[in-house]
Amino acid sequence: MQDAIREGANSFLFTEYKYVSVFMALFSVVIFVLLSSEDGFSSTWKEDEAGILRAPGLYNGMFSTLAFIIGAATSIVSGYLGMNIATYANARTSLEARKGVAPAFMAAFRSGAVMGFLLAGNALLVLYILIMVYRKVYGDDWEGMYEAITGYGLGGSSIALFGRVGGGIYTKAADVGADLVGKVEKDIPEDDPRNPAVIADNVGDNVGDIAGMGADLFGSFAEATCAALVVSSVSSLGANHSWVGMCYPLMITATGIMVCIGVTLVATDFYPAKTVDDIESTLKYQLILSTAIMTPASYILTMLSLPSEFTGLFADASVVAKSWHIFVCVASGIWGGLIIGLVTEYYTSNTYEPVQGVADSCKTGAATDIIFGLALGYKSTIIPCFMIAICIFTGFTLGGMYGIACAALGMLSTLATCLAIDAYGPISDNAGGIAEMASMGEDIRERTDALDAAGNTTAAIGKGFAIGSAALVSLALFGAYITRAGIDVVHSSILDPKIFSGLLVGSMLPYWFSAMTMKSVGKAALAMVEEVRHQFATIQGLMEGTGRPNYRRCVEISTAASLSEMIPPGALVMGTPVVVGILFGVQALTGVLAGALVSGVQMAISMSNTGGAWDNAKKYIEAGASEHARSLGGKGSDAHKAAVIGDTVGDPLKDTSGPSLNILIKLMAVESLVFAPFFLSHTKDGILFKLFG
Amino acid sequence: MQDAIREGANSFLFTEYKYVSVFMALFSVVIFVLLSSEDGFSSTWKEDEAGILRAPGLYNGMFSTLAFIIGAATSIVSGYLGMNIATYANARTSLEARKGVAPAFMAAFRSGAVMGFLLAGNALLVLYILIMVYRKVYGDDWEGMYEAITGYGLGGSSIALFGRVGGGIYTKAADVGADLVGKVEKDIPEDDPRNPAVIADNVGDNVGDIAGMGADLFGSFAEATCAALVVSSVSSLGANHSWVGMCYPLMITATGIMVCIGVTLVATDFYPAKTVDDIESTLKYQLILSTAIMTPASYILTMLSLPSEFTGLFADASVVAKSWHIFVCVASGIWGGLIIGLVTEYYTSNTYEPVQGVADSCKTGAATDIIFGLALGYKSTIIPCFMIAICIFTGFTLGGMYGIACAALGMLSTLATCLAIDAYGPISDNAGGIAEMASMGEDIRERTDALDAAGNTTAAIGKGFAIGSAALVSLALFGAYITRAGIDVVHSSILDPKIFSGLLVGSMLPYWFSAMTMKSVGKAALAMVEEVRHQFATIQGLMEGTGRPNYRRCVEISTAASLSEMIPPGALVMGTPVVVGILFGVQALTGVLAGALVSGVQMAISMSNTGGAWDNAKKYIEAGASEHARSLGGKGSDAHKAAVIGDTVGDPLKDTSGPSLNILIKLMAVESLVFAPFFLSHTKDGILFKLFG
Repeated sequence: MQDAIREGANSFLFTEYKYVSVFMALFSVVIFVLLSSEDGFSSTWKEDEAGILRAPGLYNGMFSTLAFIIGAATSIVSGYLGMNIATYANARTSLEARKGVAPAFMAAFRSGAVMGFLLAGNALLVLYILIMVYRKVYGDDWEGMYEAITGYGLGGSSIALFGRVGGGIYTKAADVGADLVGKVEKDIPEDDPRNPAVIADNVGDNVGDIAGMGADLFGSFAEATCAALVVSSVSSLGANHSWVGMCYPLMITATGIMVCIGVTLVATDFYPAKTVDDIESTLKYQLILSTAIMTPASYILTMLSLPSEFTGLFADASVVAKSWHIFVCVASGIWGGLIIGLVTEYYTSNTYEPVQGVADSCKTGAATDIIFGLALGYKSTIIPCFMIAICIFTGFTLGGMYGIACAALGMLSTLATCLAIDAYGPISDNAGGIAEMASMGEDIRERTDALDAAGNTTAAIGKGFAIGSAALVSLALFGAYITRAGIDVVHSSILDPKIFSGLLVGSMLPYWFSAMTMKSVGKAALAMVEEVRHQFATIQGLMEGTGRPNYRRCVEISTAASLSEMIPPGALVMGTPVVVGILFGVQALTGVLAGALVSGVQMAISMSNTGGAWDNAKKYIEAGASEHARSLGGKGSDAHKAAVIGDTVGDPLKDTSGPSLNILIKLMAVESLVFAPFFLSHTKDGILFKLFG
Repeated sequence: MQDAIREGANSFLFTEYKYVSVFMALFSVVIFVLLSSEDGFSSTWKEDEAGILRAPGLYNGMFSTLAFIIGAATSIVSGYLGMNIATYANARTSLEARKGVAPAFMAAFRSGAVMGFLLAGNALLVLYILIMVYRKVYGDDWEGMYEAITGYGLGGSSIALFGRVGGGIYTKAADVGADLVGKVEKDIPEDDPRNPAVIADNVGDNVGDIAGMGADLFGSFAEATCAALVVSSVSSLGANHSWVGMCYPLMITATGIMVCIGVTLVATDFYPAKTVDDIESTLKYQLILSTAIMTPASYILTMLSLPSEFTGLFADASVVAKSWHIFVCVASGIWGGLIIGLVTEYYTSNTYEPVQGVADSCKTGAATDIIFGLALGYKSTIIPCFMIAICIFTGFTLGGMYGIACAALGMLSTLATCLAIDAYGPISDNAGGIAEMASMGEDIRERTDALDAAGNTTAAIGKGFAIGSAALVSLALFGAYITRAGIDVVHSSILDPKIFSGLLVGSMLPYWFSAMTMKSVGKAALAMVEEVRHQFATIQGLMEGTGRPNYRRCVEISTAASLSEMIPPGALVMGTPVVVGILFGVQALTGVLAGALVSGVQMAISMSNTGGAWDNAKKYIEAGASEHARSLGGKGSDAHKAAVIGDTVGDPLKDTSGPSLNILIKLMAVESLVFAPFFLSHTKDGILFKLFG
């Protein structure tokens, strides 16, 4: 079983990476040509007013491309390793479940932690080595060097896009396909080995939830760091060549990893969870504890590594920032992230009123379930939005764009813990799947179900983090783009026709993108439904358990569908900045980025939470853990059937469209930043306006 | 029957207006106090640098309040008259249906046209009289005068808010309540007189779709005109006291009304629709013809009334506009509106591929129906968004904020035709209801159904218009607010912390508002379901047709629920500009308005079209007019049941939340404009920032 899943997952990843490699090769050429053409492919170093030798366009083109490839490769390796840990951990957890809940929890949580530290450490290490090498090449041209480094973020994020979109379509096509025929038509339980799509479903959980999410958060980390580095390279830190000051963004992450390691010990050695009831609180306290310890740690770090006062080019005006200002920015990010996570939990966990209300509405049918679920998602945007706005305001006011980048890094500093908690969910989910498929007995399945239920809630926290940090990261990148594209306060007025039109079109992009991804899931799921129906109809003895289903065929269908379906949304995201920048110029692009950011955040939050709430409302009715839950009728009742419809609608919202929107806003911003030098020198006012203006 | 409906509708409106009067009285005090306090309740006229006597704050407070009350009263009268025409027309149409389709169509269309011309003419006349009177009072202080006139827009829009939200909750609570018990549980047909909620349902169609929509478009017209007047009062037209030039915005509307009257004759006298197939094209060509004739008419008007060149204060810089520039702005609005309308039709009519695809997806159940419907709504934002962006860019570039206001007026110039077409839908829908309730026979019901089907599609066109014009109107008001609040290009930069945070929070408001309205519909519908169930259980002989249902009780429940539920969303919309302006200052408010605008437009379009598509997908399956439609199984099949769930979800989206969002964005902008003088003189940087900064 485990081998089949691992084989399926690896085969998907290999096929995906094959497609992605072609794209990467093409895009590398684009990056190289566009950036090198900035000064007409010159290869001579030029001295600027301050007497610093500046690297020529050819260098920037070359090294940006190299950074792009390395970023992409790191992301691919991280995804691959993470998934292999996960598939191994699945089997291990289901075996440990025979001994009891506590050992199974430990196996799942440790695996998650290994993955978290591996990804975070790997990302940091590669970036650091890259900086050290580029430093030799670029000499004193730190601005040029950190600009080239930005390619690293673009590379990581591009892979994340394909991972999230491709993986998201894969996992949901398999899931919906398996459920619609298996559970609804044939009335066999979830994860039943007779269902031909069951392996594809499990593969999907690994490639979508683990590889996709890992790549997403890796991208956020890489981009936030790059944004902070670009902005600080034009500050007095960069001008005075304060190496320690410049490494501050990297050190926040390093400190975060160390704090998270310490906190992990609490769960594994000092106070391990012993019973099922402990699990949820153990996971939650991991995050709260990380946040609490990270605050003083980052204070000490800030005081030691930043000069007590430095001048920065913050949003076009030079501002003096004190070191404690920057600490406040970081702290606002750390705590903002925690609050967003907890609010997400409140709206998506079935221990609180909102999800119970949605479950209640199932009594009058699927329509009211959908209406209440949508309303819940809309409502859940309120507090996170205020939190992000506070982080933005604090960061902006105290440290300009650098402050926002630091807030983003603060939010991401507990990344390792987040990843550990987040990976725990799919690991225990799949452990349950394996237990079912391998017919390991009812009691073991019950244990893994309990583990899974706790994981579901904490995974929601991780999603909240991902969205919140994505918003801050995009804004930091947006700020770096503004700085690099030479847009000053006067030319970024909301009253500029290009900016306002851009704002409107930008805020439409998340809708366009979601329309594409949701329809893709629908189409891929329909293909899967037909295949599963076909197998049930043609393979003799399948229902009786004597015939063997063709798992491989389902895996192939999911793979093919997801890969062909991920191209149009991918092209939309990757193409927009280039097309807008070239045709309409840097100001229009400014509007588009800001519009996509503000509208994408709302959609991402509401979609994820709506989907999560429907999922848990269904589980609430199934589990029947309280008087109220039992009054709804349990499995098989009309209310449960309504809840299943809601859950199915929620699948593409919470696992495909919602999380992909994070990447949309980040990727468009980092891509604009990378291409800013080209736009500035060649298409500042847009080719279209030059032709017709 | 007709009497019962008219009585119910009037009683709802009277109760609603009672609540609204209390609110209006309170809000009048707020307007008076805040605006008069601008210069400390002074009553002395002061001479400005140019030697013009400026009216004191007390005058502005007094006359703004008066304009506010008159605007509100006009809107109330319009809504009341419109609804009485409609309820009379309902009965008339169902009687005419006995003679055939053509006379019935004529009755319904003529009534719609009467309503359209009445509302448009009334709005224009009152505004014109108001300006003539105020001119006597204000003397040469045209700036102050047109600022006070803005109260007219605010009044009209406030009523529209309550009309749309209250009416929307009413109509959907009654509709969902009647359907859930009647159609689903008791299996009796729609509009069956045995259903106790049937009168409430029909009342709802009148108060929601007719009074609400009329008030909405009246508000748009009043606001667009006010915005254009305010902006042009600070241009050279105002400074040179060019009365004809100042009246240009009013004359666009006047020309529009005349053109529309001419076009109506084509449908009533020259080429009246003779068969059912003619109806849809007749209605559609009304709009296309109005647009085509309006273009040269507005060209002639522009050349006659505007000086060939004039200088305006357009977004903080003085720009010279030529008269043909302004004509291009108007024309872009006229044609932009038509294209948005036709795109809306494409996405919501079941003669095209999108809705048929949604109907197709019902085969695999309600979940895929919902997923495909949501995706369709998201996708339908693309072209309207580009169209609005083009109108904005054209208007902004050629005539600054004045250009945008003119584009909005251009879009609204075909208002009378739009209203006629739009009102036609609910009139024929209710005619069908009356035919059913009065047991007038199968053939008559078939005729009214055919009329209704055509009306459904053209009503979608009207909704597209309403959203598109709302976006332009809000932007024009936003521009006038910016001008009045003294925000220049430097202080409106997207890089300002207050503006960006405001942008993010503003783009969240439509979500918050929708969460409220959707939940309200759910709650009100649940109350209705319980009452209907109760009546079926307790009134003897109700199912057999011997007992008489208590219609009045259902009407009362809908009325009470909708009125109490409309307060929180109303408070959110009316309160936000005041709270943000006072606590956080004019810049933060700028961000909030822009954010609400760009995000609200997307949500309004996608919600309306998603709901419309679900509705028509259901009708497509029911009608079974094509081979493909029949293959889905028709009424009672599984696909039809799935489609009914989609339709029920769509009801609050398309008739409550979606259309209310238009008003949210307009109302917040006009309110900010009215209060701008107060914010500017007292809370420019926000009380909160003053306290802690």
